[in-house]
Amino acid sequence: MATICSVKFDIAEESVEVPAGTLLTTAAEKAGIEINQPCGGQGRCGQCAVQVTAGKVRRRSTMRLSQEIVEQGFALACQTIVEGDLTVIVPPQEMIQQHLTTGQSATDVSVPEGYDPHRDQTLSRVPMRLKPPSMEDQTSDWDRVQTTILGETGLGEVEISLEVLQKLPVVLREGKWQATAVLYAPDGFQTDGRAEVIDMLPGLMADDAPLWGAAVDIGTTTVKVMLVDLMSGEPKGQASEYNAQIARGEDVISRIIFASKGTGDQTLRELVLKTINELLRLASKRGKTRPEKIYHTVISGNSTMIHLLLQVPPSSIRLAPYITVANHIPVLRAREAGLNTCPTGKVTCLPGVASYVGSDITAGVLSSGMSETDKVTLFLDVGTNGEMVLGSREWLVTCACSAGPAFEGAGVLHGMRATTGAIDEVWINTDTWEASWRVIGGGKPKGLCGSALISLLAEMLMTGVINKSGRFDFTKDTNRIRKGSHGGEYVVSWAEETEIGEDIILTEVDIDNLMRAKAAIFAGFTVLGDSVGIPLESVEQVLIGGGFGQYINVEKAVQIGLLPDMPWERFQFLGNTSLKGAYLALLDHKNKAEISEIASKMTYIELSADNRFFDAFTSAMFLPHTDLSLFPSVEIKVDK
Amino acid sequence: MATICSVKFDIAEESVEVPAGTLLTTAAEKAGIEINQPCGGQGRCGQCAVQVTAGKVRRRSTMRLSQEIVEQGFALACQTIVEGDLTVIVPPQEMIQQHLTTGQSATDVSVPEGYDPHRDQTLSRVPMRLKPPSMEDQTSDWDRVQTTILGETGLGEVEISLEVLQKLPVVLREGKWQATAVLYAPDGFQTDGRAEVIDMLPGLMADDAPLWGAAVDIGTTTVKVMLVDLMSGEPKGQASEYNAQIARGEDVISRIIFASKGTGDQTLRELVLKTINELLRLASKRGKTRPEKIYHTVISGNSTMIHLLLQVPPSSIRLAPYITVANHIPVLRAREAGLNTCPTGKVTCLPGVASYVGSDITAGVLSSGMSETDKVTLFLDVGTNGEMVLGSREWLVTCACSAGPAFEGAGVLHGMRATTGAIDEVWINTDTWEASWRVIGGGKPKGLCGSALISLLAEMLMTGVINKSGRFDFTKDTNRIRKGSHGGEYVVSWAEETEIGEDIILTEVDIDNLMRAKAAIFAGFTVLGDSVGIPLESVEQVLIGGGFGQYINVEKAVQIGLLPDMPWERFQFLGNTSLKGAYLALLDHKNKAEISEIASKMTYIELSADNRFFDAFTSAMFLPHTDLSLFPSVEIKVDK
Repeated sequence: MATICSVKFDIAEESVEVPAGTLLTTAAEKAGIEINQPCGGQGRCGQCAVQVTAGKVRRRSTMRLSQEIVEQGFALACQTIVEGDLTVIVPPQEMIQQHLTTGQSATDVSVPEGYDPHRDQTLSRVPMRLKPPSMEDQTSDWDRVQTTILGETGLGEVEISLEVLQKLPVVLREGKWQATAVLYAPDGFQTDGRAEVIDMLPGLMADDAPLWGAAVDIGTTTVKVMLVDLMSGEPKGQASEYNAQIARGEDVISRIIFASKGTGDQTLRELVLKTINELLRLASKRGKTRPEKIYHTVISGNSTMIHLLLQVPPSSIRLAPYITVANHIPVLRAREAGLNTCPTGKVTCLPGVASYVGSDITAGVLSSGMSETDKVTLFLDVGTNGEMVLGSREWLVTCACSAGPAFEGAGVLHGMRATTGAIDEVWINTDTWEASWRVIGGGKPKGLCGSALISLLAEMLMTGVINKSGRFDFTKDTNRIRKGSHGGEYVVSWAEETEIGEDIILTEVDIDNLMRAKAAIFAGFTVLGDSVGIPLESVEQVLIGGGFGQYINVEKAVQIGLLPDMPWERFQFLGNTSLKGAYLALLDHKNKAEISEIASKMTYIELSADNRFFDAFTSAMFLPHTDLSLFPSVEIKVDK
Repeated sequence: MATICSVKFDIAEESVEVPAGTLLTTAAEKAGIEINQPCGGQGRCGQCAVQVTAGKVRRRSTMRLSQEIVEQGFALACQTIVEGDLTVIVPPQEMIQQHLTTGQSATDVSVPEGYDPHRDQTLSRVPMRLKPPSMEDQTSDWDRVQTTILGETGLGEVEISLEVLQKLPVVLREGKWQATAVLYAPDGFQTDGRAEVIDMLPGLMADDAPLWGAAVDIGTTTVKVMLVDLMSGEPKGQASEYNAQIARGEDVISRIIFASKGTGDQTLRELVLKTINELLRLASKRGKTRPEKIYHTVISGNSTMIHLLLQVPPSSIRLAPYITVANHIPVLRAREAGLNTCPTGKVTCLPGVASYVGSDITAGVLSSGMSETDKVTLFLDVGTNGEMVLGSREWLVTCACSAGPAFEGAGVLHGMRATTGAIDEVWINTDTWEASWRVIGGGKPKGLCGSALISLLAEMLMTGVINKSGRFDFTKDTNRIRKGSHGGEYVVSWAEETEIGEDIILTEVDIDNLMRAKAAIFAGFTVLGDSVGIPLESVEQVLIGGGFGQYINVEKAVQIGLLPDMPWERFQFLGNTSLKGAYLALLDHKNKAEISEIASKMTYIELSADNRFFDAFTSAMFLPHTDLSLFPSVEIKVDK
């Protein structure tokens, strides 16, 4: 019989009794308390943090909690086991947010030189001092406003939505016939052009008062929001968080399947909207405004994310011949899109190219500058899928390969995301095969993040721990190479050195997953190059977007054959190119048009229908490759 | 103590006990039964009809119930008093509808000669045999459809709403890549023009399959709906009903006041939508279709009705300087407007001119043909307000005067609407001052409708029962002229001759109300004519729209000075010109454009700011007028 423990939550009226070994979330449920678990209780999002003020618990994981607050008793309810009578405080969500380590740095953008809101923006404020109506001038409210706007702007036509019309008379009288119209013109404000009044505000505003917009990047795993003052073009607040859809599937395929069943599509829409709206709230708070003041939101994301956001059935993305319902989405009203910004404000979903090359890539190409350069450029965005684009100002060719989430730390026994406690770099001694490592945030290691996996694989290859096929050399005189329940394995850290109390190892199954991932990506490069007759060595620059590139060691990525073998100076890491692209499209309608242009210009190569891909994949299933002539710098060291 | 009666409703489990004298609706409420009372229990709509199968009741009114069904025990629950133990059947609403006399005849329209849906319509169906996608052709669903539509129609641009996009993939696959797109182009289908896909249907349809639209006339008192097959242009079903807003105020002013308090605006919107949606259902049933198949609805109505329908604050209409929020309403989606037609279908509210000259008048002017004629024309639409337009092809001038509802039978002691049981014509014997009359539907009279009031006033004047000031001549030797609680009065029918069991009389107060109404209208004519320097005798034709004209005797209307004195052949009664105008705008975008043209062309004269109006009104407060030279044909008879 298990010991019965009494758990008292501060916000519950009475204590509940649960057997020792019960999860805190289960105890909370019994007490009638709903604990927020956007990641579905996987210990990834940190939102379920509670404070244990008395009693004994065991923490399976403290991901996203700093050492400091763990010392104050904080614990992830979904990862914490009751081991005695407890007193628990359930803090307000606001407070939890402040304590979490995000593992996500803000995306750096700079306002483009010469940015001029009056020339570049799709939004404009028109201040109006109206003549009040009288018995001599019985013009209707809307005619009065319309005439003024046309006179002030030189536009040829201005429309108004019912919702703004409904508030118009109240606003005009509240402001005593001084009012400000907020206009939206999809192609900018041109003489004789067309615009829509998307809001009316009482009174006049300072010319340089902020005019708010937002850029949103919806990743399969992470959603990022950037609040921008469109008058200056400057970002004024950022926020990022796991996509709450994760609880319903880790990758796009499992989400598409979830969406196809019952009301799954609605559930997924609600989940991602919950994440986006919470981030809009946070970013607005940081920018000292409110989401309802945001008039234009530009969204980038892979095609599945965009379909799920808009509840457009995504099934055809998953099934041959793998097509989207739409790559070009009409501009929506915020209310229709489900965003908590100004309901009559606009939402632009940037255009994608195909099922697996979405607007995260088209926006990325724009922000990388590759569509403006004469240099032959390879653009790469590795997430759960690896998408890549080859080309220059003149032409663009693209493909996507299903790399799997190995480089994100998933599908690998001790894999984890690049957050506090993750090993991010490994070195193996050539003579003793002993390992040393670096941990993000210092402290004891909890697991291996993507860059550590690349590094480890390269070190094992270079030191002969594994051979070109990824098989262990059990003849080496070290207890770090051993046979385990998953076949051969290498011990990176011994249990006593770790935070998790068990050996951190890499198994043959893990190695196989990593090799498949890197082979898929390298095969993608090969097919892209082949399709336009350009050998990889002719590529003049490799631009790497997405979270993937931020921590990796290029030398080691080349050693395992993940990246092509070329001088380091040709590689550039650009960070979140998708969010940057959305930011640029938000600032300037010409950028938005350029992204459409990029989307129509790109030639998409469907790899699943391409035998060349299968051949290239098979050839790349060695470390670094069957054809070592492709990796001259690696060849030397292996032979050494 | 009142006798206690037991009332058993068939749909209630148990009998209820109520004192004799209780209304049936009160008894029903006690039994937990909700009886439908769209008119608010005023005995006007007939919707609360029930069947008393046993027991004694007293019917205060049986308006809208035929003699035949009253004999079967039918009674208006809101007008029927319990006088003994009862058994009552509450019939389904459907059945009630069939039994009611509407008092509203269908509006006659004929399809314009040469009507060609392909040239005139704003709607179009495009049948598509699509090539299914394949690994060689991974075009997205929407790109595939878009390209086909542009190819088939020659349009330059086609858009789609999110809602249609959401159903697109399902429709295409259900129809095995044969599908029909329904397009809307506000200005018709022109080469390089712009349209929107408002629906997608699986499979192909016969070219002449019906394509449904609806014309709606929202009157302050009555709402009319006409279902139209846009392929042939033919009306296929009509329905009309009291505007359920009546329960919250009889005229536009009281409704504006109601709308301004709390959630009154929402209540009024819901009430009129309930009426319109029920009529759309009925008309669709008659046309053997469903409201969701209706893709375009064109609405006409006075400015207050349009504001209330759209929940646009109407207060400024009522307060000086009497302006609308908007005379031109943007085209709406049905979902936004609240109609139960295809949610992505369109709703066009026709443009009005001013607070008291709405789209019922602009549509009326179009359908009357006055904007196409060289003849100097007076167009008149008398309802609770009297709106009038003077002009021709070249110019149009308009005004509105608050006549009050006297000619609709309201504000007059024994006034009633022109339905079964209403006296519609009265004759008084010159020598005996005895009255004879005609009753709509035969039977015993219940009251006096508008045409009877005009007729009675004229007869009283002509026979000297009253003088030019509307005062009774008590010296006449007849017991029909007497003094009552409202001052002088004339008995039209004695209690024993009537259905209501009391004398039907016209009092001095009634006469005063009628004189004010007719004076206001005639003063309107005077000011209109003065403002353009055209004497009334130069008017070449008088076109009368609305329900008002259908039963009136022109000779008698001239005798009391309501209509100008001119040869009868110059008068024409056109019926519901507002609904006809909406029908014409529904058929042809050129008509819609013409109505906009009419709206901008009309010069509006605000009478409340015009001293001429007050003078003209005062002069017209005699029968027929202070200036008898204006009424030469009347003058003779009075002097006789």
